[in-house]
Amino acid sequence: MRGAQFSRFGDPAEVIGIVDMPDPGPPGPDEVTVRMIAVPVSPSDLLKMSGRYGADPATLPMTPGAEGIGRVVAAGSDVRNVAVGDLVWSPAERSWRQLVQGPARGLIPLPGHGDPLQLAMGRANPLTMWLIATRYVDLRPGDWIIQNAANSACGRRLIGLARDAGWRTVNVVRRADLVDELAGAGGDVVLVDGEDLDGRMLAATGGQQPRLAIDAVSGTATGRLAACVEPGGTVVNYGLLSGEPMIVPAREALFRDVRIRGFWYTPWVQTAPLEEVEQAFRFVAEKVAAGRLDTPVEAVYPLEEVRAAVAHAAREGRRGKIMLRLADG
Amino acid sequence: MRGAQFSRFGDPAEVIGIVDMPDPGPPGPDEVTVRMIAVPVSPSDLLKMSGRYGADPATLPMTPGAEGIGRVVAAGSDVRNVAVGDLVWSPAERSWRQLVQGPARGLIPLPGHGDPLQLAMGRANPLTMWLIATRYVDLRPGDWIIQNAANSACGRRLIGLARDAGWRTVNVVRRADLVDELAGAGGDVVLVDGEDLDGRMLAATGGQQPRLAIDAVSGTATGRLAACVEPGGTVVNYGLLSGEPMIVPAREALFRDVRIRGFWYTPWVQTAPLEEVEQAFRFVAEKVAAGRLDTPVEAVYPLEEVRAAVAHAAREGRRGKIMLRLADG
Repeated sequence: MRGAQFSRFGDPAEVIGIVDMPDPGPPGPDEVTVRMIAVPVSPSDLLKMSGRYGADPATLPMTPGAEGIGRVVAAGSDVRNVAVGDLVWSPAERSWRQLVQGPARGLIPLPGHGDPLQLAMGRANPLTMWLIATRYVDLRPGDWIIQNAANSACGRRLIGLARDAGWRTVNVVRRADLVDELAGAGGDVVLVDGEDLDGRMLAATGGQQPRLAIDAVSGTATGRLAACVEPGGTVVNYGLLSGEPMIVPAREALFRDVRIRGFWYTPWVQTAPLEEVEQAFRFVAEKVAAGRLDTPVEAVYPLEEVRAAVAHAAREGRRGKIMLRLADG
Repeated sequence: MRGAQFSRFGDPAEVIGIVDMPDPGPPGPDEVTVRMIAVPVSPSDLLKMSGRYGADPATLPMTPGAEGIGRVVAAGSDVRNVAVGDLVWSPAERSWRQLVQGPARGLIPLPGHGDPLQLAMGRANPLTMWLIATRYVDLRPGDWIIQNAANSACGRRLIGLARDAGWRTVNVVRRADLVDELAGAGGDVVLVDGEDLDGRMLAATGGQQPRLAIDAVSGTATGRLAACVEPGGTVVNYGLLSGEPMIVPAREALFRDVRIRGFWYTPWVQTAPLEEVEQAFRFVAEKVAAGRLDTPVEAVYPLEEVRAAVAHAAREGRRGKIMLRLADG
């Protein structure tokens, strides 16, 4: 089979290439082999290639890929949850290759009526936001959520999830030119981050404070979100776009009982009860297949053009995701 | 009656003085009048006089005093929890006066066998530490707690509470000359704050990580404690001695599920169920009366010498609390 691979860390478009790889053998009793259809080019893939995401040379050569969609072509003798022919998410990382083999645990048959490109990037991001929105505070219809990096793939998914759940969103962005766009995408309030964020938010929400803040930025942005939530509210961090530690005035925790938490998808998938994982997977798969969480796609490249795809993904000012197409489905 | 009062903000020893004040009238149905016996001079009192603790000129003239001990001399018709003659904690702030009137809610008769000076400062500090130690994580005998500002009145109370509960303490201090002293006071491990705190802690505890960290400092100290707790552990902030915001690497929340909280005693007393408040009050009163939480007293001044008492309390290098004695008991 063919697959993408890099053998040294560096400029992603320079280090990535396509190579021949041995096909996997028959799957183990609990494993499946999946013929991949489409995979997204994600920020974490670029970070891995550039060596800024756990750059251990012992892991080289490495194939990028955090997720994707494909069809089961072989299943181990003990696998019951999916069958040959089923559309599934990639059973393992390193998914930029024609065949991916991995554990069947947690896999579900994906709805056939969905857009395969949306499904290919429809697991980690929407699930992260869904879990953050449901695991920390008990949100009721009409409640507010505030999030920063609201224009990210995760941020846009939250807007879609909130719309369907009846929650209202305050969306914090860095650039004023995103305000109209996110309002058009369904954001109830869109604000540019900075001074007096809490005062501007109160003016926009008519004095209502969110019970939950979702922070992808860290640094002083965490503290600005902490000032926005109601007393006893929670800030959940899931990213560190600023590269800074979380900086939060102690008065928010001390005098207003604001709670600071963090959420990371990977250990949740690995340790949550299987039933809980499958239930969450089914929930977001249906949402994505129904077109409720569509994320713009800017370009689709065949696997053989991975270098152009990666160069495109690294460009500033994109308006959507870059995808790799490996098969027709 | 006589009482301490300041009419402007400034150097505490210069602005404080003793004045004649009108005696309070008969207590309301839910109130008691208490003849004060002893009150501590606390850091918050000095901050109030210097104007660094909510310096609203509209509150002037003001009497300092956050707590203290006295005897009930009059009780309203609806008061059932205490009676005339009972030893009680001050029913209100502004306690540096001979008679304090306030709500009887939450007051308990204090044990007569205790040292009145220890009881006078035996409410807020021990209760703060007891509530932090019991409300956020489920500590079992043998579990570790880490705290900074371990030589403070609160920090020393935690050492006593932990000793009786079977918890072990890692005590973080700023000065190396406190290490032996705190170890002698019962601290299981005593470390000087700074670089590689978590590594030095692991070496001292044989690789065991605390489930709870208690932070009175804020700033980067909060992050150093966050690095010390076990995955899923909690850091509870109750002070901001550094004057800095809490600075915590996002990876602690994100990858290790460390939780950041804050605790403030005042709203807890005002809003917790009465039974819970009384139960906690009784618990710490018994501990203090039994001499299990003794805090060193450096000097006791009569009320009329409040200026000397305040000047003494503001001095560097004290080895114990400064108290004001208002009556014999």
